[in-house]
Amino acid sequence: MSSKIILGDNQFGKAEVRVVKISRDTARHEIEDLNVTSQLRGDFSAAHLEGDNAHVVPTDTQKNTIYAFAREGIGAPESLLLRLGDHFTSSFDWVTGGRWEAEAYSWDRIQAHGTGHDHSFVRNGQEVRTAVLVRDGETNHLIAGLRDLTVLKSTESGFTGYPKDRYTTLQETTDRILATDIAARWRFKTGTDFSKVDFNKSYNDVRALLLEGFTEKYSHALQQTLFDMGTKVLEAHSDIDEIKFSMPNKHHFLVDLSPFGLDNPNEVFFAADRPYGLIEATVKREDAAGAENAWSGIAGFC
Amino acid sequence: MSSKIILGDNQFGKAEVRVVKISRDTARHEIEDLNVTSQLRGDFSAAHLEGDNAHVVPTDTQKNTIYAFAREGIGAPESLLLRLGDHFTSSFDWVTGGRWEAEAYSWDRIQAHGTGHDHSFVRNGQEVRTAVLVRDGETNHLIAGLRDLTVLKSTESGFTGYPKDRYTTLQETTDRILATDIAARWRFKTGTDFSKVDFNKSYNDVRALLLEGFTEKYSHALQQTLFDMGTKVLEAHSDIDEIKFSMPNKHHFLVDLSPFGLDNPNEVFFAADRPYGLIEATVKREDAAGAENAWSGIAGFC
Amino acid sequence: MSSKIILGDNQFGKAEVRVVKISRDTARHEIEDLNVTSQLRGDFSAAHLEGDNAHVVPTDTQKNTIYAFAREGIGAPESLLLRLGDHFTSSFDWVTGGRWEAEAYSWDRIQAHGTGHDHSFVRNGQEVRTAVLVRDGETNHLIAGLRDLTVLKSTESGFTGYPKDRYTTLQETTDRILATDIAARWRFKTGTDFSKVDFNKSYNDVRALLLEGFTEKYSHALQQTLFDMGTKVLEAHSDIDEIKFSMPNKHHFLVDLSPFGLDNPNEVFFAADRPYGLIEATVKREDAAGAENAWSGIAGFC
Amino acid sequence: MSSKIILGDNQFGKAEVRVVKISRDTARHEIEDLNVTSQLRGDFSAAHLEGDNAHVVPTDTQKNTIYAFAREGIGAPESLLLRLGDHFTSSFDWVTGGRWEAEAYSWDRIQAHGTGHDHSFVRNGQEVRTAVLVRDGETNHLIAGLRDLTVLKSTESGFTGYPKDRYTTLQETTDRILATDIAARWRFKTGTDFSKVDFNKSYNDVRALLLEGFTEKYSHALQQTLFDMGTKVLEAHSDIDEIKFSMPNKHHFLVDLSPFGLDNPNEVFFAADRPYGLIEATVKREDAAGAENAWSGIAGFC
Repeated sequence: MSSKIILGDNQFGKAEVRVVKISRDTARHEIEDLNVTSQLRGDFSAAHLEGDNAHVVPTDTQKNTIYAFAREGIGAPESLLLRLGDHFTSSFDWVTGGRWEAEAYSWDRIQAHGTGHDHSFVRNGQEVRTAVLVRDGETNHLIAGLRDLTVLKSTESGFTGYPKDRYTTLQETTDRILATDIAARWRFKTGTDFSKVDFNKSYNDVRALLLEGFTEKYSHALQQTLFDMGTKVLEAHSDIDEIKFSMPNKHHFLVDLSPFGLDNPNEVFFAADRPYGLIEATVKREDAAGAENAWSGIAGFC
Repeated sequence: MSSKIILGDNQFGKAEVRVVKISRDTARHEIEDLNVTSQLRGDFSAAHLEGDNAHVVPTDTQKNTIYAFAREGIGAPESLLLRLGDHFTSSFDWVTGGRWEAEAYSWDRIQAHGTGHDHSFVRNGQEVRTAVLVRDGETNHLIAGLRDLTVLKSTESGFTGYPKDRYTTLQETTDRILATDIAARWRFKTGTDFSKVDFNKSYNDVRALLLEGFTEKYSHALQQTLFDMGTKVLEAHSDIDEIKFSMPNKHHFLVDLSPFGLDNPNEVFFAADRPYGLIEATVKREDAAGAENAWSGIAGFC
Repeated sequence: MSSKIILGDNQFGKAEVRVVKISRDTARHEIEDLNVTSQLRGDFSAAHLEGDNAHVVPTDTQKNTIYAFAREGIGAPESLLLRLGDHFTSSFDWVTGGRWEAEAYSWDRIQAHGTGHDHSFVRNGQEVRTAVLVRDGETNHLIAGLRDLTVLKSTESGFTGYPKDRYTTLQETTDRILATDIAARWRFKTGTDFSKVDFNKSYNDVRALLLEGFTEKYSHALQQTLFDMGTKVLEAHSDIDEIKFSMPNKHHFLVDLSPFGLDNPNEVFFAADRPYGLIEATVKREDAAGAENAWSGIAGFC
Repeated sequence: MSSKIILGDNQFGKAEVRVVKISRDTARHEIEDLNVTSQLRGDFSAAHLEGDNAHVVPTDTQKNTIYAFAREGIGAPESLLLRLGDHFTSSFDWVTGGRWEAEAYSWDRIQAHGTGHDHSFVRNGQEVRTAVLVRDGETNHLIAGLRDLTVLKSTESGFTGYPKDRYTTLQETTDRILATDIAARWRFKTGTDFSKVDFNKSYNDVRALLLEGFTEKYSHALQQTLFDMGTKVLEAHSDIDEIKFSMPNKHHFLVDLSPFGLDNPNEVFFAADRPYGLIEATVKREDAAGAENAWSGIAGFC
């Protein structure tokens, strides 16, 4: 006798809506460049079980809504996501929540003849800023973040004192290159009054703290550096409850030049692609309310 | 007065260990081609808080172990992961669990002079097979899967009957192209005796059912097709408790050729990149035990 | 006294026009899936020097033309390119030539209930077929090809007898894995009557010969295998004048398992990403007319 | 009677050797990060025809040589390539030339506590710097360049006055977004005394001129802007003979918001992926000696 087969968790929407917003109120234009994904949650069982689309707000409509809302201005990725979440949950009875996500790409003014140009920009190309809003009924879980911020310390890093077994061949070192692509996501305290948060200022400050934390102290393990970076953020930002990291240990192997009669005092390295170490951890407040569901579907964060 | 800052969930290991295993017991060689990731969970707080690595089984050692275990044969990606999980949790007191993951790439024998060659292979290049083992104490959660299996129906698909609002411009259609990249992950029933499962046979059968399910019935929505595909798998495989899908709706827009004096009776399409619809859902047994943690960190599955 | 600055070689057009053509004359549909690039050459100096667009056939128009021509059927990538070349050079006086390029993706029928389905397809995912037409006045240079056909021999390959210098550390071997991604481009004899060529049949035959050539003989060097593959093609296809290859030597390093008390008789390999060997060569008829310009702009073919 | 089949142009070597060089003469470290490819040309026919490797300088040796040379310092990508070219052509009688290529990735010092850190760096992530040396006997053709420098003008660009035919549907516009990824390669005059060139200074200056050129003047066509950019470079750098560009016209389509009762005065755009315009042209000195062979194998430059 077989068990009944049912529909479990589900969501649907439009992914990777590329929107570029130019603000041209004055001759000095501003640019905002986003990649937005909208996914709705609620009662969509008829579509799955019977092919009845009466509840299926078209993904095309979700896309149109993103563009229409951009017309009124963006301001910060998080702000746009919050407005989208409000809109969809209030417009359709059966939409009880959803997940809205954005990546933001940063542009600098082109320096021409000694000054930043009014309407010509060069893409910054460094990290990608990320934002995720998971809305469940009236509760908004908001997670800011970044990825692909590639950093490297050319000294003040080592790895010693680890356990050895029959499969261990690694040699201890007290001076190595430490390199990683920082991917970090930080969750605002549940219940925060988001209308009072300056998301862009907060983002810039967290980013600076992460970079600064990477530079400080001798690193005995990437785990230690990660924890220091997270601690700095939580100490400075009382409205952030937890921060998660997923960071590769990008190996730079010292090349053995001795067959060629050359020494190599930590100067010439082979930057390897794969495999790589992978360090993932959460730094959080002891009294933070759990929000596991908010993290579902984010790749590579345990 | 600020709250205490602590270490939350964490794991670490070696990612993307590329291992190719040739079995050459006879002149007719066999090839297995995997990309394996090992991540350990347990008590690693000293590394994070104090830079004390006494518990940090080097990621290099984890890599070595994967290669050493491959020497004894692979058999199926899931089998290798189970052996790795047993090894690490039994070898180190403080390792209480972990996450092991594999991608497998399929190769066909080259057809030369009318027959499959003994030791020359061509990469199949179709879907990537995936496997994830999440071990928590004595419990093994095992999730098989695949991704990037790109399929297309050139008719027998429509989209009508959806709700309209002020942002709706989409026109209804009863004949469109339906195309997607199938990404599916199916979880074996907790407590399954994995020594009795023929994982390769199971995989091939699920894959065939997914493809077959895609072809059957008129599709009123990708959601409906998805649910049908999942139901077929669960009906045929009593040892699978749930299957999750994350499938783009890859839009193929009919090109308007009327300005050039041409009709276009569903013959010429523009295959768009972004944005795309994104449909995600779980099909499961009503009495399945929950295993939310097993899914953590898998991108794009709600 | 400075020299005069002038416009040199130039071309412009629309790149990566994704066109999917469904032939639905019967219930058993056919699918063709292409990525087409059109670039015009001729007199466009006024656009560059004065911003005068009177000669600039819009790239949007070039795109429209591709879709309109697809309405009349594709047949083979090469056939579509030839028609596009004829059209643009005959429609605009100042367009004296151009470069048209296509990639083609192959689809198989989904096997459902034991038979190939009428209108459901699965992308083949193996190699990408390529085609380039360079037209200069009345002369058509036509280059067919493929890329990303990944192959591997698990034995019958070695590398010995090479010169040694102070920078040589490589050990000789008489049994290694030989793996590569075949990228090959073959040029039809200038002056061929293309209306008589069955391009799809020719392509399938060349592809089979390349695979077969890879399997034959012990390989003393990838160079030797490459030359054998090319020779097979030229011997069988009198209308092809030359074939160029660009093939990585994808290193598979034997893992040293001796520290773990294990042997490794060519069974367990690490598949490396970078660096890789890169072997490029031309195999051609001694009496072939040169056509260097036809190859310009094709990456990685010397 | 069939024609004789022979070996044509060929080269071989090691591709994508990733080398990171740390200069630590003082506590203020410097970092250089390159991806180097070495390919030899000369008499390698025995390897192709007979599998005789007596002339085949192993690609592994070429890799080792790159690392050994890095030990003595890099200085500029072009400088390293010139040294490699001298070495290989002078060390092996049968090596008469070759092609050496590098990509260079730029790093900034991390700003921590208000100052640039001594040994902590963040990858710049903007353009990739490129360099190619083609050596033929005693002649060195040296091509510097960059790619993926993404720029955008939010106004001062239009497209009008183009020819219309039956396939034209594009509307004229006098105010649009102009966006591209600059890929440019500039060739130094043949016979330049390279020991006197400060390649890093030259690179930085050309890069600045390209950006500045992009900002200047109203753009009637990307072709016009391209020509202006190239002219600026040649006017300022008498040792550069020609510069080639390959630049996509990255379409930003104004979103029609009128169905939602909203205007859109060039504020909200959809950034499309494919297809894209593709503009390629050479700007050169009228009296420049030709060097067509130097450009062979560089993708996407006509």
